Amino acid sequence: MTKNYFSSDFKLGILGGGQLGKMLLYETRKFDIYTRVMDASSEAPCRIACNEFIQGDLLDFESVYNFGKDVDLLTIEIENVNVEALEKLEEEGITVYPQPRVLRTIQNKARQKLFYVDHNLPTAPFSRFAYSSEIRESIAHGGLSFPFVWKSAQFGYDGKGVKVVRSEKDLENLPNVECIAEELIDFENELAVIVARNADGEEKAYPVVEMEFHPEANQVEYVICPARIPDAVARKAQDVALKVSRELHHVGLLAVEMFQTRDNEILINEMAPRPHNSGHYSIEASYTNQFEQHIRAILNLPLGNTESKVAGIMVNLVGAEGYTGNVVYENIDEILQLDGVVPHIYGKKETRPFRKMGHVTIVNQDVDKAREIAETVKKKIRVISN
Amino acid sequence: MTKNYFSSDFKLGILGGGQLGKMLLYETRKFDIYTRVMDASSEAPCRIACNEFIQGDLLDFESVYNFGKDVDLLTIEIENVNVEALEKLEEEGITVYPQPRVLRTIQNKARQKLFYVDHNLPTAPFSRFAYSSEIRESIAHGGLSFPFVWKSAQFGYDGKGVKVVRSEKDLENLPNVECIAEELIDFENELAVIVARNADGEEKAYPVVEMEFHPEANQVEYVICPARIPDAVARKAQDVALKVSRELHHVGLLAVEMFQTRDNEILINEMAPRPHNSGHYSIEASYTNQFEQHIRAILNLPLGNTESKVAGIMVNLVGAEGYTGNVVYENIDEILQLDGVVPHIYGKKETRPFRKMGHVTIVNQDVDKAREIAETVKKKIRVISN
Repeated sequence: MTKNYFSSDFKLGILGGGQLGKMLLYETRKFDIYTRVMDASSEAPCRIACNEFIQGDLLDFESVYNFGKDVDLLTIEIENVNVEALEKLEEEGITVYPQPRVLRTIQNKARQKLFYVDHNLPTAPFSRFAYSSEIRESIAHGGLSFPFVWKSAQFGYDGKGVKVVRSEKDLENLPNVECIAEELIDFENELAVIVARNADGEEKAYPVVEMEFHPEANQVEYVICPARIPDAVARKAQDVALKVSRELHHVGLLAVEMFQTRDNEILINEMAPRPHNSGHYSIEASYTNQFEQHIRAILNLPLGNTESKVAGIMVNLVGAEGYTGNVVYENIDEILQLDGVVPHIYGKKETRPFRKMGHVTIVNQDVDKAREIAETVKKKIRVISN
Repeated sequence: MTKNYFSSDFKLGILGGGQLGKMLLYETRKFDIYTRVMDASSEAPCRIACNEFIQGDLLDFESVYNFGKDVDLLTIEIENVNVEALEKLEEEGITVYPQPRVLRTIQNKARQKLFYVDHNLPTAPFSRFAYSSEIRESIAHGGLSFPFVWKSAQFGYDGKGVKVVRSEKDLENLPNVECIAEELIDFENELAVIVARNADGEEKAYPVVEMEFHPEANQVEYVICPARIPDAVARKAQDVALKVSRELHHVGLLAVEMFQTRDNEILINEMAPRPHNSGHYSIEASYTNQFEQHIRAILNLPLGNTESKVAGIMVNLVGAEGYTGNVVYENIDEILQLDGVVPHIYGKKETRPFRKMGHVTIVNQDVDKAREIAETVKKKIRVISN
């Protein structure tokens, strides 16, 4: 029987109205699926292009519960939501994807790491601390040594809540919260694989992407698909991601970030149960972009082909240092002359240093040519203020 | 100097809020360009996803003039607009693309045909009549013979206002209006080429597409890119389209529909100064989709690569005969299983026979494989009512 989501009474709720939601809405508009979106900000990107926009606190039980109780299906575009409310909605028969138990596993980094260990999934060794202050004791007793990666257990977005600790000095100013200390991996590459899974259990993995990071700001500079790594390593990475996906048994997308060690082993870094920055290249490069795929997965429609039509490289557009104010995308007209270049402007009116303002995707038959053009793009375009 | 259209005070006005406008808005949202849209219907697809929606009559002078007088640039997604108002706005310094003179040339089919003749552009022979009643006289005096194609000079959309006249009987019930009678061409193929031109005169042509028509309803069934025709014919078609574009000196897109005769000559059928049904395949198949290209062209940004990443075939979704009411897309979940299939649901709640309700694009490395899958799609999916 045909599932009648299209131009019908079916209502999809989306918690979170940011950039990921905005890109999900391209797909719901393409399929004419009715959407209700909630976000804390009245200026949220999703406030236009959805059918109903509700301003509300995603972390508040009542707001989330009331938002979700009369939609047909509920999803998220950000993990920082009130999970108790989702659990209650699920009990009451509302379909929630990703499932609340998936969010529980992922939201707390200590619990997430334990999940990997419990399911024999490869990840860097770590210790969990109820408070950051316990770390000094552990170091004093030889239980922990420099350097290591400190991560707050709860929340943490886009580089905050993560710090490389190389000495006692780096311990100063750490918030005194539940945290983990992970072994610092001397990695060859940072990789990501997105896995889609629908309610029937159909699964598809995207190709492995390679992520080049900005050393200081801990933000991704280039996402390259396909990753320029040996086939055997790529297969290993996909296998690990698929294994995580099967053990987690999520519905929707799962973005698995991994390290490729110097010995070509794969270690899981983190995962996110939603469309992901590492998948934005898919809008122009893939047969099925990640946003359409997430919609297919949560609606239990057949999954689409995850292969690439062409190579794709994504460059993040972040606010240049030294500029705060109304944004100007300097030289954007010059980069538009380059072959295969597509800018995405997120719509934030104000720029400030390192603020994620957009991205540019460069597509080409040849990944090395794409990488050259991507570098030109990165050098030319500047996100400044007037 | 960087043209600051992005996340700025720049306002783009779009006359017409239908499906073409809806797809233009994906691009303005991608670039965060502020949009104001006008349409006669309060249920217009564009009413969400634009920044300001105005309900108003596109054919009314005051409505169009008031709409356009405080935007920075004005464009259209439908030719049926009040051109006097656009001329006044242009006089007063508002940039209007396509230019009002282009709309004048195109809106009246007799004037359009004369343009081709005056500029030595190949087109089927024709006669112009102030009233359809004059046709009988012309036939009686031997100035015109059956069969021919009758077309009303003013307006006419999607098959209406066009009729093949094979006998006296077919002349009955023709509206008694200004019209043309064109020689009926026994064509090998119907082709289309979209040409983009920006204000600096940069021009780019898309590949030639082939259009298969439904014999009775006079609507396109399949749009195939690349057209399966000899290279020499394709080059000829592109040359003709580029020549029209240069003679017309439009800004924005120009879709040129042509016949390939049995002798492999090219004859121009019609043109439209906006994104076009024959270009929808470009969303999934081209390096730069036609909607983004139109935006680039009218903003005088560099044009994007018009080449294809993969072959693309578009199938129109039209209401099945015998069904009127709330739409149901029967078997849409089955076609979603097929490789490279992307449905676009326009969002009209009610279906009726032959109503254009959406389209499906099938992409594949191989155009023949795409054509097979497209046929399966066409056989499976039915636009019915519940």
